[in-house]
Parts: sequence; structure tokens; C-alpha cells
Amino acid sequence: MNRWVYSFGANETAGDASMRDLLGGKGANLAEMSKLGLPVPPGFSITTEVCTHFYKNHNAYPDTLKQQVDKALCLIESEVGCKFGDPKNPLLVSVRSGARVSMPGMMDTVLNLGLNKITVEGLAQKSDDARFAYDSYRRFIQMYGDVVLGIDHYNFEEILDLKKDEAGVTLDTELTSDDLKSLIDAYEEKVSSVTGKAFPQDPVEQLWGAIGAVFSSWMVPRAITYRKLNDIPENWGTAVNIQAMVFGNMGENCATGVAFTRDPSTGENIFYGEYLVNAQGEDVVAGIRTPQHLTKEGKESNKSNLPSMEEVMPQVFDQLKGIRSTLEQHYTDMQDIEFTVQQGKLYMLQTRAGKRTTAAALKIAVDMVDEGLIGSETAISRIEPSSLDQLLHPTLDPDANRKIVARGLPASPGAASGKVVFDADEAERISARGEQVILVRIETSPEDIHGMHAAEGILTTRGGMTSHAAVVARGMGRPCVAGAGELRVDYQAKTIAARDVVIGEGEEITLDGASGDVMVGRVATIQPEMSDNFQRLMKWADDIRCLKVRTNAETPTECRIAREFGAEGVGLCRTEHMFFESDRIIAMREMIVSNNLEQRRVALAKLLPMQKADFHDIFRIMKGLPITIRLLDPPLHEFLPKTDEEIREVAEAAGVAADEVRRRAAQLEEANPMLGHRGCRLGVTYPEISEMQARAIFEAALSVKEEIGEEVHLEIMVPLVATGREIEIIKEVIDRVANDIEKETGDTLKYIVGTMIELPRAALCASEIAKTASFFSFGTNDLTQTAFGLSRDDSGSFSQEYEEQGVFSVDPFVTLDREGVGELVRMAAERGRSVRPDIKLGICGEHGGDPSSIQFCAEIGLDYVSCSPFRVPIARLALAQAAILQK
Amino acid sequence: MNRWVYSFGANETAGDASMRDLLGGKGANLAEMSKLGLPVPPGFSITTEVCTHFYKNHNAYPDTLKQQVDKALCLIESEVGCKFGDPKNPLLVSVRSGARVSMPGMMDTVLNLGLNKITVEGLAQKSDDARFAYDSYRRFIQMYGDVVLGIDHYNFEEILDLKKDEAGVTLDTELTSDDLKSLIDAYEEKVSSVTGKAFPQDPVEQLWGAIGAVFSSWMVPRAITYRKLNDIPENWGTAVNIQAMVFGNMGENCATGVAFTRDPSTGENIFYGEYLVNAQGEDVVAGIRTPQHLTKEGKESNKSNLPSMEEVMPQVFDQLKGIRSTLEQHYTDMQDIEFTVQQGKLYMLQTRAGKRTTAAALKIAVDMVDEGLIGSETAISRIEPSSLDQLLHPTLDPDANRKIVARGLPASPGAASGKVVFDADEAERISARGEQVILVRIETSPEDIHGMHAAEGILTTRGGMTSHAAVVARGMGRPCVAGAGELRVDYQAKTIAARDVVIGEGEEITLDGASGDVMVGRVATIQPEMSDNFQRLMKWADDIRCLKVRTNAETPTECRIAREFGAEGVGLCRTEHMFFESDRIIAMREMIVSNNLEQRRVALAKLLPMQKADFHDIFRIMKGLPITIRLLDPPLHEFLPKTDEEIREVAEAAGVAADEVRRRAAQLEEANPMLGHRGCRLGVTYPEISEMQARAIFEAALSVKEEIGEEVHLEIMVPLVATGREIEIIKEVIDRVANDIEKETGDTLKYIVGTMIELPRAALCASEIAKTASFFSFGTNDLTQTAFGLSRDDSGSFSQEYEEQGVFSVDPFVTLDREGVGELVRMAAERGRSVRPDIKLGICGEHGGDPSSIQFCAEIGLDYVSCSPFRVPIARLALAQAAILQK
Repeated sequence: MNRWVYSFGANETAGDASMRDLLGGKGANLAEMSKLGLPVPPGFSITTEVCTHFYKNHNAYPDTLKQQVDKALCLIESEVGCKFGDPKNPLLVSVRSGARVSMPGMMDTVLNLGLNKITVEGLAQKSDDARFAYDSYRRFIQMYGDVVLGIDHYNFEEILDLKKDEAGVTLDTELTSDDLKSLIDAYEEKVSSVTGKAFPQDPVEQLWGAIGAVFSSWMVPRAITYRKLNDIPENWGTAVNIQAMVFGNMGENCATGVAFTRDPSTGENIFYGEYLVNAQGEDVVAGIRTPQHLTKEGKESNKSNLPSMEEVMPQVFDQLKGIRSTLEQHYTDMQDIEFTVQQGKLYMLQTRAGKRTTAAALKIAVDMVDEGLIGSETAISRIEPSSLDQLLHPTLDPDANRKIVARGLPASPGAASGKVVFDADEAERISARGEQVILVRIETSPEDIHGMHAAEGILTTRGGMTSHAAVVARGMGRPCVAGAGELRVDYQAKTIAARDVVIGEGEEITLDGASGDVMVGRVATIQPEMSDNFQRLMKWADDIRCLKVRTNAETPTECRIAREFGAEGVGLCRTEHMFFESDRIIAMREMIVSNNLEQRRVALAKLLPMQKADFHDIFRIMKGLPITIRLLDPPLHEFLPKTDEEIREVAEAAGVAADEVRRRAAQLEEANPMLGHRGCRLGVTYPEISEMQARAIFEAALSVKEEIGEEVHLEIMVPLVATGREIEIIKEVIDRVANDIEKETGDTLKYIVGTMIELPRAALCASEIAKTASFFSFGTNDLTQTAFGLSRDDSGSFSQEYEEQGVFSVDPFVTLDREGVGELVRMAAERGRSVRPDIKLGICGEHGGDPSSIQFCAEIGLDYVSCSPFRVPIARLALAQAAILQK
Repeated sequence: MNRWVYSFGANETAGDASMRDLLGGKGANLAEMSKLGLPVPPGFSITTEVCTHFYKNHNAYPDTLKQQVDKALCLIESEVGCKFGDPKNPLLVSVRSGARVSMPGMMDTVLNLGLNKITVEGLAQKSDDARFAYDSYRRFIQMYGDVVLGIDHYNFEEILDLKKDEAGVTLDTELTSDDLKSLIDAYEEKVSSVTGKAFPQDPVEQLWGAIGAVFSSWMVPRAITYRKLNDIPENWGTAVNIQAMVFGNMGENCATGVAFTRDPSTGENIFYGEYLVNAQGEDVVAGIRTPQHLTKEGKESNKSNLPSMEEVMPQVFDQLKGIRSTLEQHYTDMQDIEFTVQQGKLYMLQTRAGKRTTAAALKIAVDMVDEGLIGSETAISRIEPSSLDQLLHPTLDPDANRKIVARGLPASPGAASGKVVFDADEAERISARGEQVILVRIETSPEDIHGMHAAEGILTTRGGMTSHAAVVARGMGRPCVAGAGELRVDYQAKTIAARDVVIGEGEEITLDGASGDVMVGRVATIQPEMSDNFQRLMKWADDIRCLKVRTNAETPTECRIAREFGAEGVGLCRTEHMFFESDRIIAMREMIVSNNLEQRRVALAKLLPMQKADFHDIFRIMKGLPITIRLLDPPLHEFLPKTDEEIREVAEAAGVAADEVRRRAAQLEEANPMLGHRGCRLGVTYPEISEMQARAIFEAALSVKEEIGEEVHLEIMVPLVATGREIEIIKEVIDRVANDIEKETGDTLKYIVGTMIELPRAALCASEIAKTASFFSFGTNDLTQTAFGLSRDDSGSFSQEYEEQGVFSVDPFVTLDREGVGELVRMAAERGRSVRPDIKLGICGEHGGDPSSIQFCAEIGLDYVSCSPFRVPIARLALAQAAILQK
């Protein structure tokens, strides 16, 4: 006979914590606590397999379920000494859902089940508290009516409000037992009129109603959506937990509370929690009464006047303290527990791993290693890599009030406050006065760079995660919210119109670059701190990971930060970003709008020394480490002069008529710049550009080599290759320049040439490309765009809808799409290696900083991941976790 | 011992026509003619393997080559009775290159080799014609100097001109033998001064010099480029043909000529050719003398006064006529032959398959089947499918003068002339007066449709092969040249500025939509004719092909044309194109700029009856055949209202403020429309659009079914799918609408739902998508764009450069890229079938009308190809050829 029901309690416990899949998280932990001999009110779990059976068989239960439930109920009865439905001594139970993972959206809880017109009287007598009994029954009808019978709770609240008006009171607790009795009548009447049937009086009928409601709630739309969004398979199902009721509200020797076995904010090894005397769980949540601290220490450090549990119920507290220690030793992790004290007796209602801040998580993990509770691999696995962001940037004080006026894309993490300015020059001017500013633009362009530098944070209303603003801000480590489309910026009026406010220049706003929130006024922030715990854990991580971590960086500052964060090379140095600086943009534009070879050479000659100087600094900083330099890949439209002023500047510099520049700029406009004349296509058609860049790279490398007495590890990367011939052509140019320079200087150059794999065709034809390319770096931003035929900048208008409808379970621009883009990466890696077994393989798209994507890179055996400087620690940790998983 | 040399001639012939790979085309056919006993001057071929050896071994020859050449030379000597280098009776030879296929760019010919200061005197004596001998030597030095010694021919021409001035004559032929002697001295001096060495006098040295020059010419840049452009592998190599000289210029009993065994223009079974008495081949080409006709009939029908060969040399002519018949019987194809008559004796110098017009090719193929020379499969294989275009559209008269002022993209085939107009209304007005017009626009938009209808042809200066103008013109069968970027259109001044002319409104121009040429004035055209031969050949083709041919069509007219051309269904009916009509564009725009569901529903309600009416006609026309209807996939930017007038119209229709429309239109602008909010993304976010379309389709289908008493074969296609979930969502909407209509009408609907595979991810995840999709139609336009990351509209600026540099051997937008895009198609087909073995597979991109791409479709076993109406016959023929190849 299949076992559908698992009991727990003092007399008989069938399950344990390892049976989470079958019993759900809650049920498994209740069983585990029972086994540990902790005081758990007896109960039983109906397994998730019953849920699966239920849906496979048109909402029918397995034949033997009823029998097994009856038996389990008897076990409860015998342990607590009450009987289900007994008029004098009724057993009351709670019914709760419990899936493998906690899942909002499903039915939560029905309490006090087993009460009816008759048993309520028995409860009143037994507890000697009629008000308590009627209130319990009243609450039961309301809960059951809502979640089992489908009667919206406002129906009951209306009646309750009416009753309070009649009685002339404002609080529920002021109602007398008579008031409550008549309220019960009104509730029951309401149930009859809505459902056409009387409120069920038979406790067994009540029980099966509740069980059915839990299983049915697995398929309500909210639950389905939640599962889609969180990648939870439908066939997991939910369990149902039925447990004897205990009451924390039966008098002054009763209490209820929640606790963490360590401080969830700091990770400190102290017992941390709150409780209320003579109360139910709901009362803590409702916030009507101020909760009291568990410990004297907690009370004192929080300057509370209310007595601690340690003082009020010293014996029970001691017992709880013992349980705290038992659970930590047993689970070897910090626990979040719920308990109730009924007439001086302690009952444990829940234990689970406690949520914590990243700082706390680090401290707890490292402390537990020191305490011998866990090993370093477990410690590594306990930290969510992306949560490290919290440690590296200032974050909003979670306790601070905030008024959110819009939400954009979380383009660059960190929090920042400052006065609104709409212009880069203005930003620089005001910040020079020592004031903090937020630069607000519809979108940014290269000439805003100095303003972005000067600002605390950047807000744009257009563009995506890879827009100019986002990329530059991440590089600088400036918080940025991009593409906040709800906001309307009016440059003329110098205002931002938000949902219900208009913000003018000079007013303060706050950005949360980690969430994308835009807030009015200044919101308090917390400064980051790189603790010893952090350094120790990262050391353990480095020891275990198999892939290298490089950084995407193109300025000396970024390179320096990345090296401090542990980067082992530059994986992507975008040479066009070097020209976003305002003193260079004119020469860059001059080059782009050049009409012919001579004009272009003149402009390129101006760029050569600038480019050389940039490389010089970077090479020095990255001494001893490999540096991948990507040749020019300008999204041309980002550089084109647009205003009359810009056109005049470029015309002047180039010595041609403004109309000529305007005409040429118009000619270069593209319908789909993302799919246009960019990347290696520029190098193939204008080899002189690649020549200039190769020369700048090589000359800088030789000069740094002389200075530091060590070879620069050059990896020159050709962008946007789709065919073998393209990289062949560009490599010929690079080799020719190298040859020339070797002849000029008599010195020798060491370098390899490779390519970015960022187009589907390049992935498919990787074996052809690998004939020339010594390395592949996967440019997964563009690869995602082209594989999906979806521009990041244009997907904003429907991406939310796409996630809600379950088209994207995760945003493919954040987490690598394994089925599509991932297969291209895997194919390219295999095909590349088939031709060139020692080909170096890395990833340099945004995905290189995303833990799930990093895990994929480790699975397919790339050599390194490369990410923005602030993501380097995240990548190090994620790679360590991947290595542990692969073991 | 390897055989490097193959002799041919009366005494010994080693090769034959089947040895084209080894002996080259020319050598193989000379051998074949020798074997047939035809009078071929004896000679030998050095094999292509020697060429390969030459390049593999640093330009060295195989050891035994010299010996084999010597032996072959002896064979020639013994057959013609002269000796190489003999002072009295010298053997002279020609040296020619000859690859498997004719290849311009390589060394062509050195004639008269073997002459020197001494043998020239022998030749003079033997021929009794000193002038002939000196002129032959003079020509030899010039040819040899140019192609073997690398002395540019202008060096010799300068000397020749000087000599003519001295002699006071204007024609070469007026120079006396003394003049020629001193010319020879001057030539030899020039050679010495340039090369530092005397002109080689040793015939053997001359011979090896010429052989080396042929092999070296295989790797000159022009030849390399030609091979790249024509997909000719480098390792094929070239052969060298050495053959005894015969002279058509040794007197009045000498002649030289070229002939076709049938008329190459009409295909008529008549002997067609020209000859010149006492002349060399060069003289025919030089055009100084008017060539005479071979036959009396030819002479008469061309009203020539010059005597025919039939009359002048009746015996030789009879022999030639006999050879004509021998060759046709032998090769079973029309031959292009070259011959020389030396002193009354006929020599054959070349035979090869003759080039012909498409009409001629059809007639010859069908005639030869009737004559029992070939079978129908051979006939099918003889017609180049894309050449059928010539038969279906008016074409430029090849003899007409033309002045080309620009070249754009050959966007829609056919030739058209008319007066330039710059405005659609104007086009309509003038054409209503009975005048022919060409509509010239920078680019066209939906509201130009009536003008495009009215015009003979369309010229745009922006946009690619898939631009609005190109797609609509192809659909209408209007010739179109698109994206002629050299032209500058000035709407204000009403002018087109071209290379060196300015063309005003009302002036006539001519477009060649097959070449992309734009010409000033009116160029004569030839009208198409669908001959019986065409019908018969197409019938044979239909009997043998395995894939169906459908058409891309969205108007009743297109459907009608396509059905006439043999289409077996509609493979792509683009529903958005239906809204390009001017009376609908407003409602369409209204729908697009709708701010909310209600507004959109109002606009959609206006579109429903229009859409239904369109479907109604199409369903009726395509009775009995399947029809694939693609749901809305607007490139939004093509529909957005731009001018104030357009915005006003839309605002009025929608009943909202103009500013509101303008704001919304601005909001909908996209950075990369190709990668934006289009295709099924619209359907997922605005299901009401799909609902309207499904309703229109179903209601029209039911009404037509009632009318014709037959089911409409509906295939509803969801565009731009990247994930399984997208098609699932849209299919739910379609099924729901179908269900509603079935309930409303009590009738049943038959339809299947499938998708366009046009994104790399869709191809990779085809097995997921096939769970929902009953068919895949490969949208290879978009698939090419996304696989290459290359927008067709933006690639114009560098695509030529890319072809020249060998990045693209063929334009991937014209011929399917098998390595990249083709692999995606193959993968998707396999994966789709793995989940749904009976999945229907077709192609509906432009490639569906390209013969090479069609062959690929046949290879991977698709079920059908779909192409524009005028390409249907091409596809039928190409599929038949593919079937023959696959046998």
C-alpha cells in the first residue's frame, strides 16, 4: 500500500528533513524537530504525491488516503488527549500548505479547524474563557469561508465593522463574548446566503474541505505565475500539514514569538528574536502591540522598556535557548524559528534556514567554519554570489522611508542621492562647488561623460542595460537607472514629470541602481565595507575554482579597481569607449565622417597618440596579466555629430565645410545600426583604422615592456566576425603592422589574434574561424540580440509582459539562455577546439558577471569569464560554487 | 611514370571529352574532335596536375615533364612535317591556357611561337610571303613580350604608331615588309632594354617561357578574384595546350570563322556563323572588316552583299556542314566552333557548348528531345532556371544604345521606361492621361502604393532588396531599381542628380530591374512571350520534381498570376501588406498608435471587414490549394505617421488630439526596428490583434466554403517566434476564436497553426516549437539578417567591397549561405521532425526563388518552396534539376 500520510510528534514520527520533496519544507522540518525530541504539537503531512495524483485523476484522492488520514488523526488525538469533534474536549487543528520551497500565492493557513456550534462551547468550558472560544470560532469561519468556500473576506469585514459600530467600539478586542456570538450568527448567515449551504458543522467535512482547498490552490493563476517566474516545475506539487492547535492567547502564561539563532543583520552569534505575551502569531504581524525582545541583552541594546522573555519566563526561555543550540548544531546553519507557549508549555511550530543580509551571511559562514560546524566549501555555497553587490556599493538604508516615483532598469548598482541637473556642463559646475548631483538625461551620449563623472548617479528615460549610459556608468562604478520610461524629461522647462509629481532642477532625488527605483528626496544610505570575512571567503573560493576571472575595463581607473577585486586580466578592452572622452570625440567624429582615405588618415593620425597613451597606462597597471583589446566596434550612431554645434566643431577640425559633414553624417545614418556597418566590417573596408589601432597597441606594448622589463600579454580581438575570411583579412593587417614595427625597432612583438563570437553564424562556422583565431571570446550581449532577433534597447516596451506571460523565465540579457544562445556557445566551443585544441575560450558579455551564466561557462569548460570590475568578486564566488557543484 | 602530357591529332590521341578535369575544357574537346577523326591541327595538353605540382613545389615542374613534352613535340613534327626551330621548314605552335571552365583574367594565347630571326626567313620562303612572315614574327614578339616577359603592350604600340607615322600610313596592314623588318628590330631592342636580355631566339626556351607564363597566370590577382567570385577552387589548376599553328591569312584560299550549330538567338535549327577570307581570328574581333555569312540563307535573310562561304568555298563548306552535324550528334548539344581554312584545307580549332538566349535554349532543348538526340531530363538540365526571368518580363533590347547613369539593386526584374515623377499622386494623374511614368522616390511608403500601381517602374535611392519599394514592386510585377545611392533626389527642385547629368521631372528614363541599371532616355525593350516550348519543358519539369512550389502573394492579382505560372498554393500571405493600400493605412496607423485596449479595438473593428474581404478573394482564387497566412508582422516604422498631414488624419480618425498621436508615434520609434516590437511579440502583448485577424480569416473561409462548396485549406502562420511559449500563446488565441465562431455558426473549421522559422533561436529550439507548430516555413530573409547580424538595408554601403575581398562568395541575401544559415535550416528541419514526424516544411524567404538555394531545399527534403509569382516557373525548373541531380 502506498504511503500517503506521514505523522510527526512525540509518539510516532515517520519523516525527516531529507524528505522535503515528499513532505514539503514545512512538513519535513516539523518531522525532523520531532525526531530531535523537540516539543512539536503532533500532526501529519499529506504528501506531494497526493497532489500529483489529485491533478492526474480529475481532483480525486488515492483510495487509501482517507483511511491513512483517519489513522494519523487518531495518533494526534491520543497524544494530545482530545477528540476531533468531541463536544467537551474537542481536538482543534491547523491546516497549512507546504511545497518544497516557500511559495506565495498559494493557500496559507486555516486555524482552529474542528470548531462548530457545539465544540465551541466545549472549548469555552475547557479554557474557561468564553470570549477566547467565540473569537476562535469567529476567526475560523472567516478564514475557512475565505480560503475554502471562496467568500471574499471583505464580506466578513463589513459585518464585523457593522457589529463594532453597533457596539460602539473601535477595536476587535473590545467586543464582548455576546457581541462575538451574534457576530458568529451573522457570519454563518452570510455563508448560507452566498454558498446556498450552511457553514459545515462536521469537523471531518471541514477537514477535507481544507485539504481540497490546499491542493486546489496549487493551480490558482497567482501560483502558476509564481512558478513560471521562479522556474518551479508544476509536477512538484504541494503537501498539506495538519497539526494540533496550540494557543499563545489563553492567558498571561501564554506567548508567541519568532527568533533567529543568530543576528540576521550582522551575523553576530547572539540569540535574536521577539515575542508577545498572551497573543497569536497574527497579532505580531498586525503591529498593534509592540513586540518584546527575547533576551535581556537584546532589550538593553535596543533600549526597550518592555521586559524580555528571558526575564518573564526564564524557564521556558532556557528551554528555547537549548533548542536554538540543538537546531544550529543539527542543521549547521542559522535558523528562523516560530514558537508558541501555551499555559507555560513551549511548542515549536517551524524551523527553516533564516534569511540574512550579505554581511551577516558572510560572517555566519566564516564563523561556522571557525566553530567547526561547516567546511569551507559549504561556507562558499551559502553565499548568493550576486548578493555581494550589497557589499561593494553604498546601499539604501533598509529602514529609511522612501517615496518611489518610477522604476527603470537596474543598470548599474549602488545608491546615490543628489540634486537634479539636466546637462553635463551644469553637473560639472555644480559638483565643482562640492554639491552632489544626479545627471538626468533622456539618453546620454559621449559628450556627457564629464557630467557623468561629476555626478553621483545617472538617470535616463530611454535605453536599456547596454545603452551608453548603462555601460559607461557600470564602468565608472556610478549608480545608474536607465530607461525609466514612465518619467518625462522636459529639457526646456527643466523638469521631470513622474507619476504624480513634477521634479524641478535642483530638487533632490535618490536612485537605487540595484532595483531601478527612483525616489524623491534624499534617502539615507549605508556605506560598504570589505570585511575580513569577505577576504577569507574569497580566498577559499579562489582555491577551488577552475576558471579565471578577467574584467571588462577600458580606463586605468577601472583596471585598478578590477585588479583590487581580484581580476586576473582584461577580457575586454573596448577601444571605442576610449573615445567617449570629450577631448577625443571630435577627432573620432572626424574619422567617422571622413569622405576618403586621406581625410581618414589625417583624423587617425590625431587619434594614434591618444590611443597609445591609454594603452600605456592600462598595460602598466595590468602588468603580468593578459589583456584582450578589441578593435574599434563603434555603434556609429553613438558618435555621429548631431547638433549644429557638433557639426561645426567636426568641420573645423577636419577643415571641410559644415554642409559636407552634415551630408556625410546623414549618409551614415542606418536603419538598424545594430546590424550595420560596424565591427570588423569597418576594418575590412577601412584597413587604415585597424592599422592605426594595431600600431598604437604595439608601440605602447614595446614602450611598457622597456619600462617594466616584462612582456605585455597582448590578445588582439577582432569584433563582429561572421566569416573566416573577415578575421583573415584583419589579421593580415595586424601582422603586417607588427612586422613593420619589428623592422623599425629591431624588437620582437608577442601577441595573439582572436575574435569575438557574437553572431550566430560565427558560432556555427567556428571551425572555419578558428583556423585563424587563436582565441574566442563570447560576446553574449550581441549573440543574445541576434539569436533572439531582439534589440536590448527596444525590448523594454514588452519585456515585462514577456516575463509575466512566461515567455522568458528569466531575462535572457541578464541570464544566458541555455537552450538557444547557450547551444551556440557550446557548439562554437566544440567546433573551435576541433580545429585548434588549445584555443583559449572566454566570455565577455554582461553574462560574465551573472552567477547562473557563469555556472554554464564552467560546465562547458571555458577558460575564463570576464565582467565589469564590480562584478569580479561575484564571478570568483560563482565559479567556486560551480566547481563544487561539478565535483 | 606519371603521365603529364596528352597528345591529340590524327596520329595519336590520348585524351577525350570526359577528361575535362585533367586536360581543361579546350584540351579535352580538341582531343575528342581528334578521336572523331575531325581535322584538328596536332598538339598536346600539359595536364592540370602539372599546375598543382608547380605550385606545391615552388614553381618547379615534375622531373619527367620535359621528356614527355619533347616526345609530344616530335609527334606534332612528324604529323605536320615541319621541325621546331628548323631554319627552312619551321614548326610554329600556339600556346593556350585552358582550365576546366573558361576563366577570364588568365593568360590567353601566344601565337606563332617558334619564330626567330632565322626561322622567320624560312617561313617567308615556304609561304612565299615575306610580309606575312615578318608580320607573324612582329605579332609574336608583341604577344610574347606582353604575356611572357611582362612588357606592357603599350610599349610596343608606341613603337608601332611611331613606325606608322614614319611610313606615313594609318593602318597596320599598310606597312611593307621592310617596315615590318625594322619594326622587328625596334621591338627586339625594346625587349633588351626592358628585360636586360635579348629576345629569346631558341624556340625551346620560348616554349618553356610560355608554359611557365600560363601556369603563373593561374595566380595573378585578377584570376584569384575571378575564382573567388565564381566559386572555382584554387586546386583545380589550369592545363596548357600546345598546338601546331595553322594560318587563315596566307592568301585567298585561306579563311577563318566562328559558327554555331544552331541559331543562338532563336534556337532555330540552322547553321549560323561568320567567316573572313584571308584573315586571322583577331581580324574578326577587331571589326575592321565586315564578316561574311557562312550560308546563302544567312546571307539572304540578313540582306548582305558579301558572298557566303557556301558560295565561295563550296567544298570546304560542305565539309564544315558535315562536321556541324557530327558534333551535334556527338555532343547532343548546340556547339560554338572555331575553324581556319589554310590553303583550301579545313582545320577545327575549338568546339564547346554554345551560349544562347533563354528562348533559344528552350527551343533547342525541346527540339532535340523531338529529334531524339536527348531525353527530357537532359533538356531540363540545359536551361538555367534564373534565365527564365528573360521570358517573363519585358527586357531591354540587347542591341539598343544605352547611357547608364547609376546602378542600384536589381529589386524587381523587367525593363521599363517613362517620364520621371516624384510623387505618387502626380504619377497617377499623368498615367491617367495615358503617359508612361517612372516613380522616383528616396524611399517609398504605404501611401505611395497607388503611384506605384500607376507607374511603369519604381526607382528609389535608399533601401534594400527587402525594402518597401522592392517587396511591393515584386509583388505587383513592376520593375524596380532600389537603393541607387549614387543618385541624389531633390524633391524641392524636382531633380535627380546623377554622375554627370541632372534629370528633371518629365524627362524620360529607363530602368533595368534585372541588372539595377538606371539609364537616361528611352531604351527599346523586347516583349516576353510564353512559347509552347516553355510549356512543354515546364510540364516535364513538373513530372520529375519532388517539392511543391507555392507563391508569396497577398493580392488577388498576384494570386491569379502565380496560379497561371503554376503555383500550388500560397506559401506566404503577408497580412500587413494588405494595409499598404491608401484607404486602409489610416485605420492601420490608428491601430498602431492606439494607447490602450479600447482604442485598439475600435481601430481593429474598422480593419476587420477590409481584411475579411481580402481573404475572401484570395481564398476563391486559390480554390483547392493550401494558403499560408502570416499574422501581422509590421515593421512598425513603415506604418508610423510622419508628416503633420498624416498625423492629423490619424488623429481625426481616432478622435484624439494630434499631439497625442505625435507623442505616441515618437514613443514607438525604435533604435533597431528589425529587432524590435514586431511579429508575434505584437500578438503576445496585444492578443486582440491576433483575435481580429483570426476572425477575419475564419469568417472569410466559411463564407467561401459555402460559396464554392469546398473547404479552404488554411495554414495560419505565427511570425518571428523565438520560443515555444510564444506560439503556444498565439495558438491559444486562434483556437479560442475558432471555437467561438464554430459555436456562433454551428459550422466546423479546418486549419493548422505553424510558424515562421526566421530567428536563430527558433531554429535551435525547433523541437520545443514543433510541440505546438504543425508546420515550419523558413523565413530566410530575416534568418540571414540575424545569423549574420547584418541588415539588408544597411549592408549596401560595404557589400560590394565584401564581395570583392572574397568575404562573400555570393550575396547571402540572394543565395542561401549553406554553412551558416543553411545549417540552421537543416537543424530546425531535423529537430522539428524529431518531435513531429509529419511536420510540413517550406521556405518563404527570397531564397525560395533562387535556383541554388532551391537545390539546397531539395537536398534537405523540405516539402515546398514559396517565391514571388514571377519566380514560380524558375522554382519549378530548379526543383526538377535538383531532382535529377539527386537521382
